[in-house]
Amino acid sequence: MIEVDLVKEAVRQRKARSETFLGFEYLRFSDDFKDIPRGTAIFQDTVIWGYPHIGRIFILERGLKEQFKNPFWVEEKVDGYNVRVFKVGDRVIALSRGGYICPFTTDRLPDFIDLKFFEDNPDLILCAEVAGPENPYIEESPPFVEEDVRFFVFDIMRKNEQGFLSQEDKLRLIENYSLPSVEVFGKFQREDVGELKELLLRLNEEGREGVVFKEESEENRRAKYITSYANLSDIKVTTKNMLQLPPEYYTNRVLRLVLFMEEEGIERTEHLYEELGRAFIDGLFEAIEQFKREHKVYRTFRCRFRSRDNAVALMELLHRTSRHIQVIERELKQEGDYWILTFDKVFLNMTGLLGHLLSGGLVFD
Amino acid sequence: MIEVDLVKEAVRQRKARSETFLGFEYLRFSDDFKDIPRGTAIFQDTVIWGYPHIGRIFILERGLKEQFKNPFWVEEKVDGYNVRVFKVGDRVIALSRGGYICPFTTDRLPDFIDLKFFEDNPDLILCAEVAGPENPYIEESPPFVEEDVRFFVFDIMRKNEQGFLSQEDKLRLIENYSLPSVEVFGKFQREDVGELKELLLRLNEEGREGVVFKEESEENRRAKYITSYANLSDIKVTTKNMLQLPPEYYTNRVLRLVLFMEEEGIERTEHLYEELGRAFIDGLFEAIEQFKREHKVYRTFRCRFRSRDNAVALMELLHRTSRHIQVIERELKQEGDYWILTFDKVFLNMTGLLGHLLSGGLVFD
Repeated sequence: MIEVDLVKEAVRQRKARSETFLGFEYLRFSDDFKDIPRGTAIFQDTVIWGYPHIGRIFILERGLKEQFKNPFWVEEKVDGYNVRVFKVGDRVIALSRGGYICPFTTDRLPDFIDLKFFEDNPDLILCAEVAGPENPYIEESPPFVEEDVRFFVFDIMRKNEQGFLSQEDKLRLIENYSLPSVEVFGKFQREDVGELKELLLRLNEEGREGVVFKEESEENRRAKYITSYANLSDIKVTTKNMLQLPPEYYTNRVLRLVLFMEEEGIERTEHLYEELGRAFIDGLFEAIEQFKREHKVYRTFRCRFRSRDNAVALMELLHRTSRHIQVIERELKQEGDYWILTFDKVFLNMTGLLGHLLSGGLVFD
Repeated sequence: MIEVDLVKEAVRQRKARSETFLGFEYLRFSDDFKDIPRGTAIFQDTVIWGYPHIGRIFILERGLKEQFKNPFWVEEKVDGYNVRVFKVGDRVIALSRGGYICPFTTDRLPDFIDLKFFEDNPDLILCAEVAGPENPYIEESPPFVEEDVRFFVFDIMRKNEQGFLSQEDKLRLIENYSLPSVEVFGKFQREDVGELKELLLRLNEEGREGVVFKEESEENRRAKYITSYANLSDIKVTTKNMLQLPPEYYTNRVLRLVLFMEEEGIERTEHLYEELGRAFIDGLFEAIEQFKREHKVYRTFRCRFRSRDNAVALMELLHRTSRHIQVIERELKQEGDYWILTFDKVFLNMTGLLGHLLSGGLVFD
């Protein structure tokens, strides 16, 4: 539990605030506050802890030696957005990493999992990644999700508790309820670094994001490790809107890319140089061309809903929470069993900068 | 002149401070303060105004239309460091852009220019770029300076006055005293954009940095425009020490590069993608390899002095003014008429980060 005084202090410091959405009223931690991670939510007396930060290692060999004393599980890290799914009263809802109730994920839960899981386990929380080309939040999507989105469970938490169920309990529940989950590559030791390097090289070639290491121990230490493919892809997908992200987003990824190559012994080929150059350049060209044509820089998103109300609620959420982005609905129409929502995110910073530069403005730097 | 009260206020706010160096005592503006640019220096009653900021245009065609109503001179922008050279008492000294007395430039002045200029014109200040592979400050050097450094006058100021001599007066003095200067491409109008695009394309192919436009008018409006070559080169030369610069240094240059290509109609070839990728990757590889070999990331500088004392003074200045950089002297020895100083700049941020990452440390981001 979280002490009442701590909650009051967080509210006073504007690190936590009351949210009313989709008929729920709850308290949301909008920032880390002392030991409470951002995204932690309190529904009446129930605390849904925020998903904790996981540190990144840049070098497999020394990193595993340094971070793990015990055997650890290796699981795929899927490139999507993080949700926590649980039962409140008689409804099952999904919270985003930041602690917002996500109308899209909540709407689609019956497509992803058998909700009987929550009837049998009302105190459990599924932590999952939602990934695919038709999601409302992120522009990246793993190559193995070709349409719509898919749901990948990777952890199970208990209400009012920090920490996770053991790997054994998690895998048993995943099996019993046929929950879709991330790929589990097995249990390894830090001496298995040769095998793990091969695994990562394969994931890199397959365009997958990376892995999470989860120690089998009381401390349950964790770390993640990302492929150079994912670093390249992060750059490529976001340059159209380069001003939205902190610039170190890009320099960090270039550094990670080089460290991955260095450790995996990947040669610096012309092709690889070319890929990085292309990742930076093409999105910016696209932004300039789009600006010249339409006087704004934007990207169109599309996603499917079971219920029209949830699509409307998503638009409301995006309007309310988007910063430096204007969200414009294009269309909401029924197609077969689904409502298809199409909307644009107009990147206001990039639109403003290109407007200034292309009209001949001066920049002092 | 600058009001005494304003100077006092600047000192109080720590925007100006007293400096004692090479036998001079003067006041140096370490930051912009109201209308006084950083680098402004006051020697007793003489004000040496800081070299003003010049805005950058990203698009030639619209930029020239927007910025200039009158004909303007087009001059080469040389990639070096900016100095102001003038007489104080019976000595001629060079101030850096930031207002430090530069022992290196000051030492070498007799190699660059006929000092009779200052006997005849004790109230004038030469604004010049010093560029070449053997300079103590910057890692870039124009391809047309193959060894040592060269000195390129581009403006003349008068003591105690802001603003510059007219182009006519400047060119006359340059000719009369055979001063080395930047290339002057001539006087243009904003309608000459076709010709200017061709000029810039040629400069780009020749690996030159760009141009400065100087309006022939009372306002003497100015703007600069940089080639994509220079943007690429800025990235390539600095990635070994990527943490030293603000990350937007890199994202800005990628954006400028793309805008230059777009306006100049440069095709996005594989070669160009490759060049940008290489610019980012190779310096980082070099840093990692150097760290593994020598446990630090550094670059070696070498420069020539006429007098040993000035070499010692440069080391003192660098020790005192370098942030996040450790300066280590390697050697100071006489060779022919010169003293050759060799020293390393150890990039402490990059050294620290690679130390953490390569030993398997975790990063939370």
